Amino acid sequence: MAQKPSIPKGTRDFLPDEMVRRNFIFDIIKDVFRLYGYLPIETPAMENLSTLLGKYGEEGDKLLFRILNSGDFLSKTDDKTLSEREINIISSQISEKGLRYDLTVPFARYVVQHQNEITFPFKRYQIQPVWRADRPQKGRYREFFQCDVDVIGSNGLFNEVEMIQIIDEVFRRLKIRVAVKLNNRKILAGLAEIIGEPDRITDITIAIDKLDKIGRENVNAELEERGLSKNAIEKLQPIFEISGKNEEKIQKLNEIFAHSSIGTKGLEEISQIVLFLKELDLETSVELDLTLARGLSYYTGAIFEVKALDYEIGSITGGGRYDDLTGIFGLKDVSGVGMSFGADRIFDVMNQLNLYPQEVTSSTQLLFVNFGEIEALKCMKLASILRKRGIKTEIYPDNDKIKKQMAYADKKSIPYVAIVGENEIKTNTVTLKIMQTGEQKSVSVEELIDLIL
Amino acid sequence: MAQKPSIPKGTRDFLPDEMVRRNFIFDIIKDVFRLYGYLPIETPAMENLSTLLGKYGEEGDKLLFRILNSGDFLSKTDDKTLSEREINIISSQISEKGLRYDLTVPFARYVVQHQNEITFPFKRYQIQPVWRADRPQKGRYREFFQCDVDVIGSNGLFNEVEMIQIIDEVFRRLKIRVAVKLNNRKILAGLAEIIGEPDRITDITIAIDKLDKIGRENVNAELEERGLSKNAIEKLQPIFEISGKNEEKIQKLNEIFAHSSIGTKGLEEISQIVLFLKELDLETSVELDLTLARGLSYYTGAIFEVKALDYEIGSITGGGRYDDLTGIFGLKDVSGVGMSFGADRIFDVMNQLNLYPQEVTSSTQLLFVNFGEIEALKCMKLASILRKRGIKTEIYPDNDKIKKQMAYADKKSIPYVAIVGENEIKTNTVTLKIMQTGEQKSVSVEELIDLIL
Repeated sequence: MAQKPSIPKGTRDFLPDEMVRRNFIFDIIKDVFRLYGYLPIETPAMENLSTLLGKYGEEGDKLLFRILNSGDFLSKTDDKTLSEREINIISSQISEKGLRYDLTVPFARYVVQHQNEITFPFKRYQIQPVWRADRPQKGRYREFFQCDVDVIGSNGLFNEVEMIQIIDEVFRRLKIRVAVKLNNRKILAGLAEIIGEPDRITDITIAIDKLDKIGRENVNAELEERGLSKNAIEKLQPIFEISGKNEEKIQKLNEIFAHSSIGTKGLEEISQIVLFLKELDLETSVELDLTLARGLSYYTGAIFEVKALDYEIGSITGGGRYDDLTGIFGLKDVSGVGMSFGADRIFDVMNQLNLYPQEVTSSTQLLFVNFGEIEALKCMKLASILRKRGIKTEIYPDNDKIKKQMAYADKKSIPYVAIVGENEIKTNTVTLKIMQTGEQKSVSVEELIDLIL
Repeated sequence: MAQKPSIPKGTRDFLPDEMVRRNFIFDIIKDVFRLYGYLPIETPAMENLSTLLGKYGEEGDKLLFRILNSGDFLSKTDDKTLSEREINIISSQISEKGLRYDLTVPFARYVVQHQNEITFPFKRYQIQPVWRADRPQKGRYREFFQCDVDVIGSNGLFNEVEMIQIIDEVFRRLKIRVAVKLNNRKILAGLAEIIGEPDRITDITIAIDKLDKIGRENVNAELEERGLSKNAIEKLQPIFEISGKNEEKIQKLNEIFAHSSIGTKGLEEISQIVLFLKELDLETSVELDLTLARGLSYYTGAIFEVKALDYEIGSITGGGRYDDLTGIFGLKDVSGVGMSFGADRIFDVMNQLNLYPQEVTSSTQLLFVNFGEIEALKCMKLASILRKRGIKTEIYPDNDKIKKQMAYADKKSIPYVAIVGENEIKTNTVTLKIMQTGEQKSVSVEELIDLIL
């Protein structure tokens, strides 16, 4: 094979430097989840297609990666179907499994399947890759990580508040300045009601969801295209203009929703959440945004999104309340709240703003130079002592030229290099080179440890 | 959907308890890898089939999970091929990608592809799932985790020694008592040479590899079946009987290999490793085992395997030296040493011997009982203080009956429950219940923190 090998388009290899930085992000997120009592679960990469199909709309079905059945995969397909190239029938006959498309549907499947093994309210987090046969483009991959946290089997608005607390804590630790936008699907339903189009909530949601991207004119055009009456669209306009503090917005909406019980219910929920948040002294500002819609159809109550303030990249976290996620798998009336941290976007923001602490970029703390067998053996014994103290220590594995060994330390950003030759063995010392300054000094092992720790 | 949902056979969901225990294992392994200067990488789940095919033998090719191409997947297949159901041709036309089968081939591909971005000697670890369309059975899954550590671009025997140091450290931390078996492919080649069958090294290796499982008689039968002469098989018998300490075995082999330069070379390598290990004072015993062969064809030097002493389960870690792993992708003469920790088997051993420390099984440390909005708000403020001190704290999310809330704490093995009602708010105290003893007492927040930490 002369050609350089490659990986499928839209997928990525992660180099050590990237991994260390990604792990820094994941570790912070996991630490916060655990501080709030959420526990990890994992589900298989492959799900039965019966679990996945029909859950993401027609477009989603097309974007599923399907696994070819093993062995004689054509055995279920008859000659006629084959010769007529009935792609849809054939594909369902030659593949039974697909790669998971998100973590939400597998989570719903998991909760139903394990309902007797888990404790409700069930608080779980899940950080795993998902796969979509999307057209790859900048920042959009065919394999990417989702980082979901959910509580299911609990109705209290307390949970919505806790989600926002978690957002506040995660981004404070990551040092990303963010703002949270908050809305409620019931408010959107109320709007549909008062403009006289109560059945058009989905159309309205899909169109409004694009307001940020395409502007109000285009949203109105899309609403018209979707069959909303001119009158309804007109009635919607003042709502786009509601502004002010959360309390002011709530007050204005209260008047508007005088005759919409669902709108009023949504407003009550929002008010309660806003009230709680005020008491909790978060760093993150939470703004009621009536144009926030979130595309996903399973949300039924509060919805929220997080934007980075110092870097333009769309939403980096989002979630909401769903009242019947597990209904599709036969378990009715189990309400929950969940959200998904966009690991890849957060990674982009951290990289662009260079928000990593110094120590995240390097890993090994000390490298012993290798002068041959006898010296290497001495170094191995010293390294054991250092590692017992938790110091990440390498010994260069070959007796290569000193210059090459130094270049290795340099490329790996190892801050300390220890030289142990004949003299050092005799005097039981180590010659330590501090890479940043070039300074070199003779030290004992204990001095060495004190210096590094 | 009335039927309870399920997952593909041979795959697993992991419940929180299992995840916490698995993470305990992975964290220890990762900590040790990092202490020795190994850094993480990750590769995509999907690889191009051109990368995977032909690397695992004919049997392996059959066990690859293939991804069906998106869109009109039959477009490359002509009518004749289709009507004649040429499975092999069709499968290569309708799928271009497969799920990774192990971490070794993707690693070789990665090293070649990124040879200009990485620093040699390249020390990496990689912990990711792999997929095989094997017949599922007890302890054998279609999705399972591999946990590989390799150094590539280094010839020194130092690396072999370091691998065994890592084994010693990992299993000491996990508290699994193990023994390491050591051999060298060059010794096996030497044996093939001196019994007069130098070209039959693969046949000999494959047969000898089964000695533990099927016994000497059956190995001899298989050797005969594979076409080895009776004379050769007879000559091999005394070698099965070599016993004693490593030094004694080495001495006997030195005589046997008087006229085999490759055998002598293998013996030199082994002697050197044994000598180094003796100096390093490991807890783990390392035994030269001439019948250790390891099935994988890419090993060229030292090979080793780890067995648990207190639980029968086959090898739980194994690896060796390879001189030309990246050759298949066009990068010649890069030697390395690597090994794979069998995460699932280690998990089994840990579970069977119950080797987890107490604190691994529980997670949340304190649960606040929920008496309604006002009390919950107070609890949220207290919880913030506790979390800042690193205490994993939950507030029960709904104002359910006390009994239900207590049952929740019990099921989740939460050791402390805090009760904050009207009285406690007035007196700025917390009533703490210690779940194990049932003891209940009134404490201040600071006292609470001191009690838990």
